[in-house]
Amino acid sequence: MKGDEDVARLIVSCPDRHGIVATLSGLLAEAGANIINSDQHSTDPEGGRFFLRMEFHLAGLAGRRPALEERLAAVAAELDLDWRLTLAAARKRVALFASHLDHCLLDLLWRWRRGELAMDVVSVVSNHPDLEPEVRPFGVPYHHVPISAGTKAEAEARELELLAGRVDLVVLARYMQVLSRDFLHRIGAPVLNIHHSFLPAFAGGNPYAQAHERGVKLIGATAHYATEELDEGPIVEQDVSRVSHRQDREELARIGRDIERVVLARALRWHLEDRVLVDGNRTIVFY
Amino acid sequence: MKGDEDVARLIVSCPDRHGIVATLSGLLAEAGANIINSDQHSTDPEGGRFFLRMEFHLAGLAGRRPALEERLAAVAAELDLDWRLTLAAARKRVALFASHLDHCLLDLLWRWRRGELAMDVVSVVSNHPDLEPEVRPFGVPYHHVPISAGTKAEAEARELELLAGRVDLVVLARYMQVLSRDFLHRIGAPVLNIHHSFLPAFAGGNPYAQAHERGVKLIGATAHYATEELDEGPIVEQDVSRVSHRQDREELARIGRDIERVVLARALRWHLEDRVLVDGNRTIVFY
Amino acid sequence: MKGDEDVARLIVSCPDRHGIVATLSGLLAEAGANIINSDQHSTDPEGGRFFLRMEFHLAGLAGRRPALEERLAAVAAELDLDWRLTLAAARKRVALFASHLDHCLLDLLWRWRRGELAMDVVSVVSNHPDLEPEVRPFGVPYHHVPISAGTKAEAEARELELLAGRVDLVVLARYMQVLSRDFLHRIGAPVLNIHHSFLPAFAGGNPYAQAHERGVKLIGATAHYATEELDEGPIVEQDVSRVSHRQDREELARIGRDIERVVLARALRWHLEDRVLVDGNRTIVFY
Amino acid sequence: MKGDEDVARLIVSCPDRHGIVATLSGLLAEAGANIINSDQHSTDPEGGRFFLRMEFHLAGLAGRRPALEERLAAVAAELDLDWRLTLAAARKRVALFASHLDHCLLDLLWRWRRGELAMDVVSVVSNHPDLEPEVRPFGVPYHHVPISAGTKAEAEARELELLAGRVDLVVLARYMQVLSRDFLHRIGAPVLNIHHSFLPAFAGGNPYAQAHERGVKLIGATAHYATEELDEGPIVEQDVSRVSHRQDREELARIGRDIERVVLARALRWHLEDRVLVDGNRTIVFY
Repeated sequence: MKGDEDVARLIVSCPDRHGIVATLSGLLAEAGANIINSDQHSTDPEGGRFFLRMEFHLAGLAGRRPALEERLAAVAAELDLDWRLTLAAARKRVALFASHLDHCLLDLLWRWRRGELAMDVVSVVSNHPDLEPEVRPFGVPYHHVPISAGTKAEAEARELELLAGRVDLVVLARYMQVLSRDFLHRIGAPVLNIHHSFLPAFAGGNPYAQAHERGVKLIGATAHYATEELDEGPIVEQDVSRVSHRQDREELARIGRDIERVVLARALRWHLEDRVLVDGNRTIVFY
Repeated sequence: MKGDEDVARLIVSCPDRHGIVATLSGLLAEAGANIINSDQHSTDPEGGRFFLRMEFHLAGLAGRRPALEERLAAVAAELDLDWRLTLAAARKRVALFASHLDHCLLDLLWRWRRGELAMDVVSVVSNHPDLEPEVRPFGVPYHHVPISAGTKAEAEARELELLAGRVDLVVLARYMQVLSRDFLHRIGAPVLNIHHSFLPAFAGGNPYAQAHERGVKLIGATAHYATEELDEGPIVEQDVSRVSHRQDREELARIGRDIERVVLARALRWHLEDRVLVDGNRTIVFY
Repeated sequence: MKGDEDVARLIVSCPDRHGIVATLSGLLAEAGANIINSDQHSTDPEGGRFFLRMEFHLAGLAGRRPALEERLAAVAAELDLDWRLTLAAARKRVALFASHLDHCLLDLLWRWRRGELAMDVVSVVSNHPDLEPEVRPFGVPYHHVPISAGTKAEAEARELELLAGRVDLVVLARYMQVLSRDFLHRIGAPVLNIHHSFLPAFAGGNPYAQAHERGVKLIGATAHYATEELDEGPIVEQDVSRVSHRQDREELARIGRDIERVVLARALRWHLEDRVLVDGNRTIVFY
Repeated sequence: MKGDEDVARLIVSCPDRHGIVATLSGLLAEAGANIINSDQHSTDPEGGRFFLRMEFHLAGLAGRRPALEERLAAVAAELDLDWRLTLAAARKRVALFASHLDHCLLDLLWRWRRGELAMDVVSVVSNHPDLEPEVRPFGVPYHHVPISAGTKAEAEARELELLAGRVDLVVLARYMQVLSRDFLHRIGAPVLNIHHSFLPAFAGGNPYAQAHERGVKLIGATAHYATEELDEGPIVEQDVSRVSHRQDREELARIGRDIERVVLARALRWHLEDRVLVDGNRTIVFY
């Protein structure tokens, strides 16, 4: 998008009440901004919560941003708004975690190189050395942080040292390790995970084996924010593919790889564009 | 929805420019309205066209509507708006046209009886008498208007006599006759058609036979507004279903029936809720 | 299909071993039959189980069937085959169970009237009187068998009296009552159920409310054979539809109705055509 | 699959008649083979054409193949069979053609490296030098054969020199050049192409621009065998993705890339496993 440096996004959530759109669009109009996209959602017009994403163009944004934020802060206090203003040109800093499976990791790096994902990949972290040669050509640092039963705390400490304060998002691109509660608290950034099942079906380990055992006719993948409860965080995106009795577990896994990488890429793209708003354990996705 | 009588929708299209949302949401806020849903689209922020649908609640709408429309008219003149205000409680009057195939027609009547479609079905028109017994239990007048090669003008005149000025929408629920340019001009209401292919593939007659001949691996259906150019009008909705070499033409038609009725029902529902805005030969659908 | 009276289906399952196809196709060829369709599946070529469905045409089938069955029985003893021979022209006798929701029931009756489902509907059974007027035009007996907390055993006894020995299949078309273990044993026919979720997700009650609560991005439906374990029986068919934060529970239920009826109709059709073979808690579906 | 060296596939097409399956399965059984998979299709049991794919295991296949082929040849003459016997272990030699777009090419190379595609990639041919660095790590020769208006014949001659007699399949992985009739005749191998639309819609150039112009609600991709008539060859696989008024041409192209690569990979996999049988301008795909 041309002129991205003059494009910003206002993300708001608040108790629903009259006049929020009018107030905010009025404020932006007075500031000289042109609203490019606007999406809103109310969980209930009476007593519910209101969510809004406004993408706007404002010539000379960099210089006029402090004044705009000051006015927003004043309105926010009045209307009890949770809000943030993000710049389209400010790429989020992202760390990609992987194990030895390459399909999600390489797919994201590819899309990134092609310009599909507006982010800065600050590093790849893996508990295996295997994928280092694949990652090298993309010019991203590869950190091999081995984890064994006894060294998890140590490994997470190493990861936090590398990343805390340096990333805006962690993406678990088929990273096969469970992150501790402590890590999630201290990393200071959301963590986006891809789970290889249609959650809440087949949470936990070996979902393709579980799916085969149960004899389902569709398999799926789920991108969600990681929380302390494994596979229980807010779902961002899901998709499925048709299967039959003909596929064994290995073929379910092969078919599943195609779903996983597309679902994760979509969820990541939406996150990077500030399209995903969290509402308790649910998400509002303005796409 | 409770209190529907106080809910209205403002539908706007205009040249894109700064401040439209602010002006309109401000106008509604001043009038005491609460915006429930708002969607907008710009074909191009610079020199493009802007489309907006705002659904709002206004206590005592009936009494306050004239004043609101007066203010809207003033703003519209200033900003060069095409606009209309529709009441959620004002059900559109709909005529359903069918031939001898029952699946789309009965599906719509069924959904209507269940409360899925907020419309008044004023009549069913068919060039065959076959479906009259099926329609009777729904309490809708059934008009049998036969058409043969030589009587088309006469038949259309009869239909116009029955309907012109009495309907807000005509739905062609697998009506196998082509409507004349003259009829489309004089009916004074949009005409929504279901075509049994994934347009622009297989326009014209016998699309399932064409699809079988070409050996496609998916078949589809398309709901579109009828225009003078057969199968060329703005597309509202499409969907497909997977098929294989195993299906012959009859089975393609059977599978296709399920797609046709779902696609038509979705498009009709969106039309009834004023979610479909026409932009030349394309549609913007806010769903 | 013309000449259906000369078409039969041989359904076989057995321990996998060499030469089964050759033996059976040879036997049919010698008998003068022409194989129209043949499908087979092995869960594992070494030590697994083999499943086969052969549809064949044999002129004068009625007269030659006893001799054919005699030869099949001899081979079956030798090869340890579970087998059955069904006639395409012998329509299965089906009872449809419903509660007060009409969408699955009416959809099946409609498809049946259209000729999409080769079955004899022997009766509709409901614990509510509501749908009797809808069912009457189809010319099918409607049995209202009320059930309350204290009368379940009595109600099931009434149903067994009506149906046991008189049906080849029971279809639960959104029948909201759990059938007892005893009923399932005594009915003497398979029971096909539609569950309004993507099993194993959201088993049990109110799956659309559960789906809304969990914030999933797709909702689904599952057709499965009923067993003593609620929602745990072999899955025949599943499908899903995309949803978003915009849909509340009622809208999930509305969208879900379209999936339910299509999934149930597909599963029923496959069952009627002897395409569904049960392998423990999984199904092989030759479609 | 273990023991692939003892697995073969018998591919047959012939006029439909009684006893083909019995004859062929009998012949294989006598030879000591165990049929692992068998699929068949008849375009019409009376006067149609019959297609069959039998995958079987035969211990010591290499040594016993000549005798088996001799017997097959005898039967083939009798029953008027077109047939071929392929070895699962005999990987097809494939040339990949690309232009400057990387997504289909790299996706295939990736899948190949992961073991998803049982082929030998003999070379990558491109009319641009751009993708050479991406291809190099896969260890495949990269041939840059520039083409301009005046040099097409010369370029094709160069390609034929490189490939004729050395490949079993050519895959056009978004190769933006039209191959001449002469090239198709002389290459001596099938050519599999991916077209970035849901054919027959939007044949020819710029299909995403055409799709945007027409306002379709789904976009698709089609894998087909190339013939002299551009975009008219037998379709192997198709798929679609939902789009809306929100996507401009660039975003349609981005979404389309995900469909293209999955559709091409599926079609290629089926081709490599001898699952695609051509019937005039249609395909039978046994998957």
